[in-house]
Amino acid sequence: MKNYLSIHDIPDLNMAIKEALYMKEFPYAFAEAGKRKTLGLLFFNSSLRTRLSTEKAARNLGMNVMTLNVNSDSWQLEFGDGVVMDANKAEHIKEAAQVLSQYCDILAVRAFPGLKNKSEDELEIVLTAFETYASVPIVNLESSTAHPLQGFTDAITIYELTEKCRIENRKPNVVLTWAPHPRALPHAVANSFVQTMQRLDVNFTITNPEGYDLSSEVRKETKVSYNQNDAFAKPALSGAEGADIVYVKNWSSYENYGQVKSQDRSWMITAEKLKQTNNAKVMHCLPVRRNVVIADDVLDSAASAVIQQAGNRTWAAQWVLKNILKDGE
Amino acid sequence: MKNYLSIHDIPDLNMAIKEALYMKEFPYAFAEAGKRKTLGLLFFNSSLRTRLSTEKAARNLGMNVMTLNVNSDSWQLEFGDGVVMDANKAEHIKEAAQVLSQYCDILAVRAFPGLKNKSEDELEIVLTAFETYASVPIVNLESSTAHPLQGFTDAITIYELTEKCRIENRKPNVVLTWAPHPRALPHAVANSFVQTMQRLDVNFTITNPEGYDLSSEVRKETKVSYNQNDAFAKPALSGAEGADIVYVKNWSSYENYGQVKSQDRSWMITAEKLKQTNNAKVMHCLPVRRNVVIADDVLDSAASAVIQQAGNRTWAAQWVLKNILKDGE
Amino acid sequence: MKNYLSIHDIPDLNMAIKEALYMKEFPYAFAEAGKRKTLGLLFFNSSLRTRLSTEKAARNLGMNVMTLNVNSDSWQLEFGDGVVMDANKAEHIKEAAQVLSQYCDILAVRAFPGLKNKSEDELEIVLTAFETYASVPIVNLESSTAHPLQGFTDAITIYELTEKCRIENRKPNVVLTWAPHPRALPHAVANSFVQTMQRLDVNFTITNPEGYDLSSEVRKETKVSYNQNDAFAKPALSGAEGADIVYVKNWSSYENYGQVKSQDRSWMITAEKLKQTNNAKVMHCLPVRRNVVIADDVLDSAASAVIQQAGNRTWAAQWVLKNILKDGE
Repeated sequence: MKNYLSIHDIPDLNMAIKEALYMKEFPYAFAEAGKRKTLGLLFFNSSLRTRLSTEKAARNLGMNVMTLNVNSDSWQLEFGDGVVMDANKAEHIKEAAQVLSQYCDILAVRAFPGLKNKSEDELEIVLTAFETYASVPIVNLESSTAHPLQGFTDAITIYELTEKCRIENRKPNVVLTWAPHPRALPHAVANSFVQTMQRLDVNFTITNPEGYDLSSEVRKETKVSYNQNDAFAKPALSGAEGADIVYVKNWSSYENYGQVKSQDRSWMITAEKLKQTNNAKVMHCLPVRRNVVIADDVLDSAASAVIQQAGNRTWAAQWVLKNILKDGE
Repeated sequence: MKNYLSIHDIPDLNMAIKEALYMKEFPYAFAEAGKRKTLGLLFFNSSLRTRLSTEKAARNLGMNVMTLNVNSDSWQLEFGDGVVMDANKAEHIKEAAQVLSQYCDILAVRAFPGLKNKSEDELEIVLTAFETYASVPIVNLESSTAHPLQGFTDAITIYELTEKCRIENRKPNVVLTWAPHPRALPHAVANSFVQTMQRLDVNFTITNPEGYDLSSEVRKETKVSYNQNDAFAKPALSGAEGADIVYVKNWSSYENYGQVKSQDRSWMITAEKLKQTNNAKVMHCLPVRRNVVIADDVLDSAASAVIQQAGNRTWAAQWVLKNILKDGE
Repeated sequence: MKNYLSIHDIPDLNMAIKEALYMKEFPYAFAEAGKRKTLGLLFFNSSLRTRLSTEKAARNLGMNVMTLNVNSDSWQLEFGDGVVMDANKAEHIKEAAQVLSQYCDILAVRAFPGLKNKSEDELEIVLTAFETYASVPIVNLESSTAHPLQGFTDAITIYELTEKCRIENRKPNVVLTWAPHPRALPHAVANSFVQTMQRLDVNFTITNPEGYDLSSEVRKETKVSYNQNDAFAKPALSGAEGADIVYVKNWSSYENYGQVKSQDRSWMITAEKLKQTNNAKVMHCLPVRRNVVIADDVLDSAASAVIQQAGNRTWAAQWVLKNILKDGE
């Protein structure tokens, strides 16, 4: 694996899930794989899980880690081509990426979208610039349109949560549901989740209010329902037994790009609402706003898998770093 | 030791002092004790000594360290139960503490009080929430009401400074004195110092202006004098020879909670004033405002033990981490 | 080597260049030299290259590294002697430096000048205070008047870039040229470059607009030309073939201290202008403002050596740390 920019960079997702679970069981099985290799973690935005789980993963592989909060520790970066740099930005990404490539063996980058200009955000200016100018592999720690470490984590977690389906010899019913939120949030997590589910052998449905459809390029053939209750009770095209997995996430409107069109509290996930499902496990990438996105009675119940899911971030990152290191040998 | 939340968590303080001094002599005696263990340092407030000495201690034990400046690196945390999280706070402590427990084997937390609301501060909301929701041991890096790593450090330092008393076969005379400061400061350091002295075989006196008595629950039977000169000259109930140790600290009023009632410069510690003592050594947890809290002629003299004291932070932290690791085996 | 405060602290610069290039070839040749030693990196200002290359260098030597962004992580420091500290600054450098010396085996400090008051800046208050009060070696990560890690890096890079001159058995022609910049920048990099060139066997010329002469104490006998084209075409007193090395840097006026007297765009380095040189390689310490200081057609061409130069920061730092550790044995 050269870079890890999207979930599509994992060649065999089912095998990767099993390898990551092996690392979960034996965290130090590859404790020398990253010896004398340095991971650079570059944050243009806040991070808790990504920051710490990726560092932890690197350390488990014996790597050194250097973290840079770009805007506060370093210089403002310019990404435009041909710009006369006489304003606030002191350094161009061309230099920064090439320089960092000499200090680090892998660069991992988090840069959120502005959510003002769809086409600009979709250019993935920051991530693409690092990919273009760096001479070392790049890992996406959440960009404008994708959060593939989260997507892979979700695949691992769903595998763990659906043993009952394997016993019953049937596909899991997985529902991605929109939920309300006071702020405009990016589409990255939802996009990567959709793209991940499309690669797994699951019955997958998205449910969101009208006006909240994700990009058609991401959705492709995935069914969208505007009725959350229907989606929870009858998620698969085959009808059947109700959702096994309810994956909760807010995102701002894609059509009316970056706008908060609805804060409809009836979309909040509650214990009552989950009764319609097949005893579903509830997932969320965190951070989650309690009693806005998901109610306390779900998060504090056995239905919640959000902590287990966050724990799996380490193994997803460790698998990705291990496979990049391996191909760099 | 499960957690280290207060000085009371050390079962045998005199033995712990000797074990910490052994670590000071042989810093790498337990260099494998923390192998493949991770310490998470979580700062809600500024830190110099605590940040670096605790990291140093962990490294001496072979631990990995991940530091998070919570407010700038990560998300604002909500601590309230049942809150509808539709305002500024993106993540609830319930999730944060559980998630961090999966990345770290010990979590150490610094969170200062607001000094506006006594009963709220005394609930120790942040520390208690971590203790409640984390599944790993918690170390207090200074909370609203206690700074037990400082307290233990002070016990170690007083042991080092009072060899003359052991030779003379008498108890050391220890005085905790209030000193002026332009800002409202917490009671944490003073509280932990009082609680530490109450566990040692010393003659202990507190001196502060009227209106500055510490919490009676902390003071218990400890004598308080409103006359600093008396306290320095005749610290013990037994009368005797003057203070051997003068421990200096400002705190805001406890009665008129969080208020600065006095900036009486006559309480500043000067070389002249120390003449009344038994050639006392002067301690302060640092940072110290020169010529406000303690005069240059003390800090720049052989009477000052503040640097030695700060150096001992490492060994206090190392003892605490080592004992938590040991009990987690 | 006790401290590394200026390029003059390197006793034999030519030998040091060769030793640093040995480390570039064998980064882990001294992987145990810093075992159980801790480097403290203290930043009063932003940093990218210095922060990461110095950490990388330390890790290559097996050192532990603790980084402190002084103003955001810790307490505001007071540097004045005898000050009554009743304003914003909570800690005096006297304590901070002595305390840090107990946690770290080497302290490295970055503190930029205010550029308001020449004589104050030239006192090097921060660096001098650390040197005075710390009990461990001090490394200058860029102070008011010097950036000697950059100077040493430049010496290494020029050695690499001038093999042709060694083959032709002649001295390299090296030109330091001022270039325009919208902000008032320090003299540190230019000063250290001048002092480094004065110690190497090169023909060295400075070119800058009138009113931009560097300090005469730094320049000494070095020739200054106010005509950039002349300097590029005929850099050496001997006349000859044009510049082999063009080192570009902006600095604010020294005479009219800290002022931006000129933003004359005709001083920007362009491909056209380089035609006058002897196929010169272009160096800059970075960050560089494209199309203000140096044009895209230079930075994106084979003439640019800025990335190679930034890469050499690691080996300069590694040589310095290695030699300080060696003398501390």
